[in-house]
Amino acid sequence: MKKIVIIGGCAAGPKVAAKAKRVNPKNIIELYTQENLISYSACGLPYFIEGVVKNINQLIIRTPEDFEKKGIKIFLEHKAQKILPKEKIVIINDKEVHYDELVICTGAKPIRPNIKNYEANGVYELRKIEDGIKIKEVMHKSKKAIIIGGGYIGIELLEAFVQNGLSVEVVEANATLMRNLDCEFGDMIKNYIQDEHSQWVNFHFGEIAQEFMVDEQNNFLGVKTKSGLMLEADFCVVCIGVKPNVEILEGTGIKTGAFGGITVDKYLRTSEENIWAAGDCCETQCYLTKRPVYIALGTIANKGGRVVGINASSKEKDWETFDGVLASAITKYFGLTIATTGLTLEAAEKISSRFNLHPISATVVKKDKAGYMPDSENITLKVVADKNTGKILGAQGIGLGDVNKRINAVTSAIQSKSTVEELLHIDLPYAPPYSSTIDVLITALYRLKDQMSEN
Amino acid sequence: MKKIVIIGGCAAGPKVAAKAKRVNPKNIIELYTQENLISYSACGLPYFIEGVVKNINQLIIRTPEDFEKKGIKIFLEHKAQKILPKEKIVIINDKEVHYDELVICTGAKPIRPNIKNYEANGVYELRKIEDGIKIKEVMHKSKKAIIIGGGYIGIELLEAFVQNGLSVEVVEANATLMRNLDCEFGDMIKNYIQDEHSQWVNFHFGEIAQEFMVDEQNNFLGVKTKSGLMLEADFCVVCIGVKPNVEILEGTGIKTGAFGGITVDKYLRTSEENIWAAGDCCETQCYLTKRPVYIALGTIANKGGRVVGINASSKEKDWETFDGVLASAITKYFGLTIATTGLTLEAAEKISSRFNLHPISATVVKKDKAGYMPDSENITLKVVADKNTGKILGAQGIGLGDVNKRINAVTSAIQSKSTVEELLHIDLPYAPPYSSTIDVLITALYRLKDQMSEN
Repeated sequence: MKKIVIIGGCAAGPKVAAKAKRVNPKNIIELYTQENLISYSACGLPYFIEGVVKNINQLIIRTPEDFEKKGIKIFLEHKAQKILPKEKIVIINDKEVHYDELVICTGAKPIRPNIKNYEANGVYELRKIEDGIKIKEVMHKSKKAIIIGGGYIGIELLEAFVQNGLSVEVVEANATLMRNLDCEFGDMIKNYIQDEHSQWVNFHFGEIAQEFMVDEQNNFLGVKTKSGLMLEADFCVVCIGVKPNVEILEGTGIKTGAFGGITVDKYLRTSEENIWAAGDCCETQCYLTKRPVYIALGTIANKGGRVVGINASSKEKDWETFDGVLASAITKYFGLTIATTGLTLEAAEKISSRFNLHPISATVVKKDKAGYMPDSENITLKVVADKNTGKILGAQGIGLGDVNKRINAVTSAIQSKSTVEELLHIDLPYAPPYSSTIDVLITALYRLKDQMSEN
Repeated sequence: MKKIVIIGGCAAGPKVAAKAKRVNPKNIIELYTQENLISYSACGLPYFIEGVVKNINQLIIRTPEDFEKKGIKIFLEHKAQKILPKEKIVIINDKEVHYDELVICTGAKPIRPNIKNYEANGVYELRKIEDGIKIKEVMHKSKKAIIIGGGYIGIELLEAFVQNGLSVEVVEANATLMRNLDCEFGDMIKNYIQDEHSQWVNFHFGEIAQEFMVDEQNNFLGVKTKSGLMLEADFCVVCIGVKPNVEILEGTGIKTGAFGGITVDKYLRTSEENIWAAGDCCETQCYLTKRPVYIALGTIANKGGRVVGINASSKEKDWETFDGVLASAITKYFGLTIATTGLTLEAAEKISSRFNLHPISATVVKKDKAGYMPDSENITLKVVADKNTGKILGAQGIGLGDVNKRINAVTSAIQSKSTVEELLHIDLPYAPPYSSTIDVLITALYRLKDQMSEN
């Protein structure tokens, strides 16, 4: 029997709690969160704002009562202030709480760029439930919005705002959207949005917001960029990424990495004994290169929560490992799906000398179903491999057709350390409503094989 | 430079021709077919009958002219009668045709059960373009149909007939539909169809058709089964499977296997020198067990066609191998998708002692997307693994949601010889419109891992 104290209540924390209790029902589990609710899907907020998800309560996966019923104690609006690793104590709301095992699941917070008048009324970030509620309210009263940041959240908010009839200015420091993809994919998304919705959407690439223009009451009026561009709108959302929320570490000696996230080993132990961490407050490693990466995503938080839940409550022989991530991600802009897994060609080229890689890629544009099916759609699939070993390194896909299916197959192949040769004639299920006889993924593999046999 | 003679023009034959010409443009390629067209999608016929595909010409992938332009000679309505392997001659339309390499792509033909009055007017099989045209014509004039056989084609035709307002009697010798799946999946399909369309569809399981009832002009009136059941209808389609079309082998010494298909090695060579085979006339092997299997599917025919096209026209050092299939398959009944890859639990259990397997399975019912997305749907996924080694052996899925994506990921894992442990925390791309944070596949892997650690 152990007392396991969890700090943080969004995704990883509740998962740790539930799993640790299931593994050993005798465990005393206490979960502390600063917020007034737990276990919610932040990833669903853009769809709540858009109106696809009607009621905010749908995003709350489990209530404190659900956990209390299982014998897990939930403490809402409790701020963890300081960890004393030697004493095995964490100070919460000015009181000492003893633990046998401590789990840090403090999540992430939005990166706040250096913009003058950042605190203006009408400037929003999207991270918590209340952010979603506020943005939805202001959206319904507005005609024009500015989105700063053209990553996943930016594109999901863009869909929400366009769907609700707003005009939108998108300000992005980079030359295209989605800088985590090879640049031609960012351009394809940009071109699609411009083709479909040019009357509602304006992009401003290579522009860095410098100042929020405000009236005398500090109400937001618009954005001024470094180049002098002035954009007016009713409100603005800043979504240029998130960073680990790790203030609690101060004075603990718990190690963090280059991205500022908590460093954990494959069992998700921090550098201090009996202290674990999971979710967006942690760095993880690239499954392929074993290099540290920082990926704040609900799916990784949930998986990490499971691993810590098992490990913090069992003996070492039963521990589960978490061997890293593939930086897989997916989103959509209306009917257009964009997905990635593993290394992009750009990322593979960047690390090629250090890892002795010779990255090659094949890009195929092909129908997602038999071409004669009336709902077949073109998709573009790019698969990246190492020319020397044939090892599959990554894939990116975009299109109105079924992109996800092909990316999932590649994810599985990378996770299984597979090669072009091994996968070449992969027996993917075939029928006209689902794929062509030679699936787009197989065509890409054929082309990679051709390149591998060239000198 | 070689003269490559190909017999058969549906899927594998044209693929061999195109690839062999591309590999070495100096090759002389001649393709002979009994039919009056080549390169068509037989798999698309149910969708032509249904009306999803409007024009039969859409199912013709390439015309003889397309091939002639590439310098490939196409001989329509030419019947190959006899192969003389020693003389390297094939007799076609009573003339001797010399070859350097001969490729047999004679395909499959429907299995014809022993039913009295089989030649009655109004009894159809579905294999060729003209079959599809005839069935569509009679369907439009009819109110009631009988389908004999509840496999893939049977279910696809059932959708077509129901969509066109017909009542349908389905006669199936087995106790449920889709006998290539574990029986609970056949039952789930059956239950779905009965729930949705009980007023149009009647199933008759365990019934074997014995006689077609006819009038004096030999017109079809109905089906009489062994048990004495009498079913009346306007017409009947028999689709209980296909068998290899290998009459041409007579007297050649070319070896066939237990399923009657041509035996080929991993380079797709037959037992006679300079004679190759690809497509539905061949047996292939199970990728997992290396046992011979017979799977007549357009995707395998196309892959085999590529392999023979390369191998018949290049030196041995450049030969490609075909290492077998996973018996992957997919179909749909309106919105319901049914898919399989690798071994079912029943199949794994059958061979467990010979292959020293201890098959276990996990079946998970879960939403295909975040549960709060209004278009999320339940899917049922069953994953089969070997308890001793953790090796993933197969998966089956059914549901109104995205089943295919999960099956493709498992296909890729099996093809990569992966294990439950290796795949456990697979970083499948996650976003609310595409999956839950812990994908249904990962839940299944978690459950398999739990079973593996039990004694």
